[in-house]
Amino acid sequence: MTSSERATRKAELARRLREIVAPEYVIDDAETQRPYECDGLSIYRELPMLVVLPATVVEVQAVMRLCHRESVPVIARGAGTGLSAGATPSPAAVVLSLARLDRIIGIDPLARTARVQPGVRNLAISEAAAEHGLFYGPDPSSQIACSIGGNVAENSGGVHCLKYGLTVHNVLRAELVDVTGERLVAGSEGLDAAGFDLMALVTGSEGMLGVVTEITVRLLPTPEAAQVVLAAFDSVSTAGDAVGAVIAAGIVPAGLEMMDGPAIRAAEAFANAGYPTDASALLLCEIDGTAEEVAEHCARVERLFAELGAVSTRTSRDEAERALFWKGRKSAFPAVGRISPDYYCMDGTIPRGKLAHVLTEIDRMAGEYELGVANVFHAGDGNLHPLILFDANLPGNLEKAEEFGGRILELCVAVGGCITGEHGVGIEKLRQMPAQFTDSEVEQMHAVKRAFDPSGSLNPGKGIPTLRQCQEYRALSRPSAA
Amino acid sequence: MTSSERATRKAELARRLREIVAPEYVIDDAETQRPYECDGLSIYRELPMLVVLPATVVEVQAVMRLCHRESVPVIARGAGTGLSAGATPSPAAVVLSLARLDRIIGIDPLARTARVQPGVRNLAISEAAAEHGLFYGPDPSSQIACSIGGNVAENSGGVHCLKYGLTVHNVLRAELVDVTGERLVAGSEGLDAAGFDLMALVTGSEGMLGVVTEITVRLLPTPEAAQVVLAAFDSVSTAGDAVGAVIAAGIVPAGLEMMDGPAIRAAEAFANAGYPTDASALLLCEIDGTAEEVAEHCARVERLFAELGAVSTRTSRDEAERALFWKGRKSAFPAVGRISPDYYCMDGTIPRGKLAHVLTEIDRMAGEYELGVANVFHAGDGNLHPLILFDANLPGNLEKAEEFGGRILELCVAVGGCITGEHGVGIEKLRQMPAQFTDSEVEQMHAVKRAFDPSGSLNPGKGIPTLRQCQEYRALSRPSAA
Repeated sequence: MTSSERATRKAELARRLREIVAPEYVIDDAETQRPYECDGLSIYRELPMLVVLPATVVEVQAVMRLCHRESVPVIARGAGTGLSAGATPSPAAVVLSLARLDRIIGIDPLARTARVQPGVRNLAISEAAAEHGLFYGPDPSSQIACSIGGNVAENSGGVHCLKYGLTVHNVLRAELVDVTGERLVAGSEGLDAAGFDLMALVTGSEGMLGVVTEITVRLLPTPEAAQVVLAAFDSVSTAGDAVGAVIAAGIVPAGLEMMDGPAIRAAEAFANAGYPTDASALLLCEIDGTAEEVAEHCARVERLFAELGAVSTRTSRDEAERALFWKGRKSAFPAVGRISPDYYCMDGTIPRGKLAHVLTEIDRMAGEYELGVANVFHAGDGNLHPLILFDANLPGNLEKAEEFGGRILELCVAVGGCITGEHGVGIEKLRQMPAQFTDSEVEQMHAVKRAFDPSGSLNPGKGIPTLRQCQEYRALSRPSAA
Repeated sequence: MTSSERATRKAELARRLREIVAPEYVIDDAETQRPYECDGLSIYRELPMLVVLPATVVEVQAVMRLCHRESVPVIARGAGTGLSAGATPSPAAVVLSLARLDRIIGIDPLARTARVQPGVRNLAISEAAAEHGLFYGPDPSSQIACSIGGNVAENSGGVHCLKYGLTVHNVLRAELVDVTGERLVAGSEGLDAAGFDLMALVTGSEGMLGVVTEITVRLLPTPEAAQVVLAAFDSVSTAGDAVGAVIAAGIVPAGLEMMDGPAIRAAEAFANAGYPTDASALLLCEIDGTAEEVAEHCARVERLFAELGAVSTRTSRDEAERALFWKGRKSAFPAVGRISPDYYCMDGTIPRGKLAHVLTEIDRMAGEYELGVANVFHAGDGNLHPLILFDANLPGNLEKAEEFGGRILELCVAVGGCITGEHGVGIEKLRQMPAQFTDSEVEQMHAVKRAFDPSGSLNPGKGIPTLRQCQEYRALSRPSAA
């Protein structure tokens, strides 16, 4: 297609989209499209052909029908806070923003469910449910901004997933519009749903199977009480063993987070949370439940940590102190942003027993690449978030950071874990998919994709590498990573 | 095919299967095949062509490869305790029994997981995990006999699913052999898995997507204490409201079961559990956790029940009394078997708020059909199990029971629920699938099926009706059911 043909096609499509939604909700100029050129992983940037913001499910259907007829790829977009470039546009595609489908349709306190549109912010669900003594479990660190539709697309997690599960464990029912504009319901408001579990299949599918237009989430009773035990250790491996010991003792913490030395010092300088800055590792273990249970379990956790070599332990005495303990953890990412020009947040999951080994290996590789790394992560889940520190202005530094990150993910696979925790695959982790999956498994995923989207129009190029890419990536991958 | 051609084909296939497994593990005579002619829903019976019992995954692969090459359908079978005829043979098919893949491969107390083969009995997992203070959550009432592979196939539930979830919430990873004999891994031992959630898709897929040959389940810490509150009510609708009140109060019982008058009296006569036989409804509410939490929550539940009109309430004082309270519930099915020549156990799920309405409607329909009905079910989940009482020796009685059962399922759909709870669709509920799903949704399930099994060789005729069947069933369905 010549550039003038492209321009004609774009103008014609914009015109027809403006017959579906109000004209100002079709964005066709580069400047206004700018906020849509990337998601939270901004090293991948690209402008789309058009951005469209429908306000209703009927409008979403009409947009999908039009794009299907015209063979235009569609990239659904939530709040754009994703971290694997799952919502990065491509030049021939329409970005379908769900931002205007932002209504909480209803909360049923008896059934303990909320029906929401995809553009509703994660935290807004818990805020609306609070008057019924309920909350929504998964709490990604972006929960102030991220949308529930995006959470479904990426199967998001958060600090409290150890006890309350990932998004897939907290969604009961999803309505979607398929590639042809047809409405489909997956799951049910009951505990079970008949037929194949399309709801779980859609969760985490990164907009590749359909566009989610309504979600029913499960709500949980707000715990009566919660306290946090903060413990300092003089090595990450001692802290790693302590994580295992808490779990082995039969305690189910609401969250169990680890930070290493660089993360502790960056966070403390930023948030003044009272963290011991000479520690090599910090654990934050939150217990929730009835007041008695919380007191009993916190005492047990403190005792366990002390027995296992914690240098110091403290339990939050009140809500203010609990909030302070979390403030450091929650500001760790911006805090790291202050000590390094750029950082790259990785996301992988390993069996809990491998924590000490993997952290040691990451440290060794950091030396090899001459890059700094800070670790802030969901230790109880084995969900790592190494932050690789680099400077994009130094030639080759970004490429080194990406290669280092890829090797961390391959290490996760090598120890029996996986290349995602809560950020999805997107574009970022396509290269590591062949380390995780055989060609048969990748081909099975393509077959499932084709079962929903035979023309490959939904978020093309994300999530699943082609078999040819798999071969290339395997040939390129360094044997040392295994 | 003539009958002599069929005999030749059968003899030839048996010969070649005997090159894969030891000769005695290929069953070709009707008498020895008899135990395989049905599952727990014995109104559907049929002998297969052959039964084969491989002992290893390699043997399973070889069997699948052979059947694929010879275009022979394969019906995977666990312990045969399923209740929707999901494992019913067909005359042209090979039944692939997983009974000999019965090893617990390993338990990892730190990761809190167990790796098991599909033929391992559900209860055997908890027994093996007990020494680590752990157990496996889902507990179908057949848990002494049913296999974990069958649980995965049907996404089984149980009394404790209200707190601990269905099978899909407790399985991390599954290895399967696909229709061509290829091995695939779905899920991971980490909290997350990259790519589409094939693990959840396979769970509940009733052997239609592949043959599961290894499963990693999540284990839970055994609660320190558990007590049961038993409450009698003089109407099912008062009891139904009490169920809602417990949930609305923010209590998460480990189980919350209801029995109606006929079920109470049958169970009491059978088990002498001390149930009040003049009650119209009984609730059993189990609380587990720390001793303090259990005591506190039981007191709150007793108070709530009393406020909401319970005629009497009692809390189990010790383990012996707790076991006694459960004994009546657990023996309700055989107990009902004593008061009626035959019974038909239905399985559907409704929103909790509709309990009273649906039970009243079932009672009304029982009058219309002149059939008895006893209700024993997971009230907290809204998972109904009406037991329809009939006498198969009376002409037309079975047909009446089936029609009544079908209308109960359609009623579940009409109030916003679904036609399954924990028994799957199998053959039994094919007729109700079009009440639950649109043609587009059914076609989407077929597309997913084809993505795994293009030739339709895996458990054909189960789970998903054809679009033609959907039209027929819709035409036949009585408007009064909606």
